[in-house]
Amino acid sequence: MIPEVNYNSDGLVPAIAQDADTGQVLMLAWMNAEALAATLQTRRGTYWSRSRNQLWVKGETSGHVQQVRSVSLDCDADTVLLQVEQTGPACHTGAATCFTDREIG
Amino acid sequence: MIPEVNYNSDGLVPAIAQDADTGQVLMLAWMNAEALAATLQTRRGTYWSRSRNQLWVKGETSGHVQQVRSVSLDCDADTVLLQVEQTGPACHTGAATCFTDREIG
Repeated sequence: MIPEVNYNSDGLVPAIAQDADTGQVLMLAWMNAEALAATLQTRRGTYWSRSRNQLWVKGETSGHVQQVRSVSLDCDADTVLLQVEQTGPACHTGAATCFTDREIG
Repeated sequence: MIPEVNYNSDGLVPAIAQDADTGQVLMLAWMNAEALAATLQTRRGTYWSRSRNQLWVKGETSGHVQQVRSVSLDCDADTVLLQVEQTGPACHTGAATCFTDREIG
């Protein structure tokens, strides 16, 4: 049973994926109820692709999957935090994380 | 000079605050261009409050401020990641982070 989640007007919540071992923040993606349920059930990081408008099992084509260790909601239930074991780079650019070398200040 | 940021249709981007020392993800809040500029300039974690519809210097009333060590954008420039030194608890509930004891799976 998934607790009440405060989805936005598009039916989505931001989901932060954090490396369970290193603590690095890997990426932020979006989940709808189906993606969250799939993530909890399969333990594979699963999101909603806003560009392709479809469920997106991270790494399905690249092999860079996320084994999910834990799923948490924040205090007002509108953000998801995943602790994951990331296979390969998390970012589609090939960088370790989506924030690698992206410091602006 | 702040690089191009992909704000959403409300002029906002999600901003993740991470404890620079422990690596804990503290919270997710939202920034508009003004909040991002203020954060970069003052080095205090500054957000846009969607409930109060105003700029929000985190800890301004509680004293639980965030000293900002670094600001990064993600690969597609629609998420901000802050490395911060958090004074006191990050969550308005008094919990260390907004995700403390909020595991759902």
